[in-house]
Amino acid sequence: MFPQTQKNIVVIGGGTGTFVALTGLKIFPVHLSAVITMMDSGGSTGRLRDQLGVLPPGDLRQALVALSRSDKLWRDLFLYRFEKGDLKGHNFGNLFLSALEKVSGSIEQAVKLAGMILDTEGDVIPVTFTQSQLCVTLADGTTIEGETQIDELEDDHERARIVHAFLTPQASANPQALRAIKEADMIVIGPGDLYTSIIPNLLVSGIAEALKASSAMKVFAMNLMTKYGQTTGYTAYDHLIDLQQYIDGAIDVVLINKAKPHEQTLTLYRKYHEHIVENNIDTSSIRVVYEDLLSNDIVQKASTDTLKRSLIRHDPQKLAKHLMALL
Amino acid sequence: MFPQTQKNIVVIGGGTGTFVALTGLKIFPVHLSAVITMMDSGGSTGRLRDQLGVLPPGDLRQALVALSRSDKLWRDLFLYRFEKGDLKGHNFGNLFLSALEKVSGSIEQAVKLAGMILDTEGDVIPVTFTQSQLCVTLADGTTIEGETQIDELEDDHERARIVHAFLTPQASANPQALRAIKEADMIVIGPGDLYTSIIPNLLVSGIAEALKASSAMKVFAMNLMTKYGQTTGYTAYDHLIDLQQYIDGAIDVVLINKAKPHEQTLTLYRKYHEHIVENNIDTSSIRVVYEDLLSNDIVQKASTDTLKRSLIRHDPQKLAKHLMALL
Repeated sequence: MFPQTQKNIVVIGGGTGTFVALTGLKIFPVHLSAVITMMDSGGSTGRLRDQLGVLPPGDLRQALVALSRSDKLWRDLFLYRFEKGDLKGHNFGNLFLSALEKVSGSIEQAVKLAGMILDTEGDVIPVTFTQSQLCVTLADGTTIEGETQIDELEDDHERARIVHAFLTPQASANPQALRAIKEADMIVIGPGDLYTSIIPNLLVSGIAEALKASSAMKVFAMNLMTKYGQTTGYTAYDHLIDLQQYIDGAIDVVLINKAKPHEQTLTLYRKYHEHIVENNIDTSSIRVVYEDLLSNDIVQKASTDTLKRSLIRHDPQKLAKHLMALL
Repeated sequence: MFPQTQKNIVVIGGGTGTFVALTGLKIFPVHLSAVITMMDSGGSTGRLRDQLGVLPPGDLRQALVALSRSDKLWRDLFLYRFEKGDLKGHNFGNLFLSALEKVSGSIEQAVKLAGMILDTEGDVIPVTFTQSQLCVTLADGTTIEGETQIDELEDDHERARIVHAFLTPQASANPQALRAIKEADMIVIGPGDLYTSIIPNLLVSGIAEALKASSAMKVFAMNLMTKYGQTTGYTAYDHLIDLQQYIDGAIDVVLINKAKPHEQTLTLYRKYHEHIVENNIDTSSIRVVYEDLLSNDIVQKASTDTLKRSLIRHDPQKLAKHLMALL
């Protein structure tokens, strides 16, 4: 297949969901671009952001590794998390991007050079270069600032429904992200946490307009499970309408999982007030693809993980197969 | 010139002196090997050693950068020192080598991969893979353990002359170091701090014997200045006899600087009880090359430097020129 006949797929998000989507899609003869959220404010990334004044490297690192064709050793190195001492909890890949941003003077250059070492296939594109924080306003009028404050809610702490999300200061789009969206044949939004991985991208000035203007098919890879404190009790329809309000209803297709996770895992999730996202979308208003997208792998938690990680995940191959069928 | 006709030069040491020697020599068509001390226990290296249980990366990092043919950006990255937060004082290159040692399982592999990124010309060879500490016994019977304890003596603190140096536990030589010494046409010892950069290499089991057995010309690049607490008040002859006792008198040639540093800089050194090394070696017993080897560059101190750095240094080009003339 000639390069010029390759279709362009843009994945918008950040975190594990985007890692999974990119991992699945990279085996196909398409050109991939990953437009990545730059609002993470927690963990290793948050410490680097606060202490060194760099842009948040964590989501970029994951996307870079997902698209890497390098030896396993390089990928392992970028994901390696220091377990002790001053460096405890820091990912090597985060330190690499932060040091390179300092030395080269830009995160853009840092991503480019990391891409060389990791021999990435496709483009990893920070959605913005503005140092900005995600904020949400709740139904009770409270405003929460900072991605990590929104993401990490203590168990059994009550939180009203999110009614509005915004950035402070307002961020302007990386021109490369706008170009990738314009030239896309398909745009995949998600999978990923709705308010902390997906919507932050769509709040960046210019992104929603570019999405709306793009002739690409826009697919929303629906969340598998609700997320306590940001989408508590949400159905598929709730996810979709929240998302659509930020992009003026641009979504064409919703990809929803129909396979059921293990009862044992669901019981664990229930303890954290998290449940399967119920498919209640009216297929007369939007195209719904309802398939088995579930990973059967057991997710290992590292002893140094400080963040709660999802045990129920999309399967890279299943997700990619059903996305490619839409292209 | 054909590769097979290239002469083999081995530089033994660590730290800034070795960096200078390698930088000067790498422009000549010779094959360079750097046999590097693994006894550093201070600063960023000491923290990584203590906290992560890795082998000391700092001296290796400097030698790797000296032999690098990569873009300046990669070299800058490896020398980049974090200035704030959890990472304050750590060199990126040290973190790189430590993370890679953890992921790959060996410092040997880590050095090899760092060499690929830095596109090093020649070989950087850890003198040993044994986790070992440098110790010295003083004339008053005191024993000091740890390179950094030996290196860093508070001003005006009295310390008796070092009479004996040893390793605990005893370290065994990296076979690659023995091979390089055996195949060498010239072996350059120094420049570098006598007890903390040079002698630690010679204490490793097998190294002194290999040096003695090698048919290479062995050159000692004499220190420019005395070092308070380890060679206080030493003349050139004092340096030479201390060195020779660890290698059974193997040195053939001593290269001594005859240019005088600026009076202003000397005054600063005098405050720290450090003086020019007086050339008092009897030329009937050993060959002495007495030349201008002095750098005229002003050495900048970084704001984050925690260690005292030498302001009076060898000039890479002058040093290399006089070494090459001996070959």
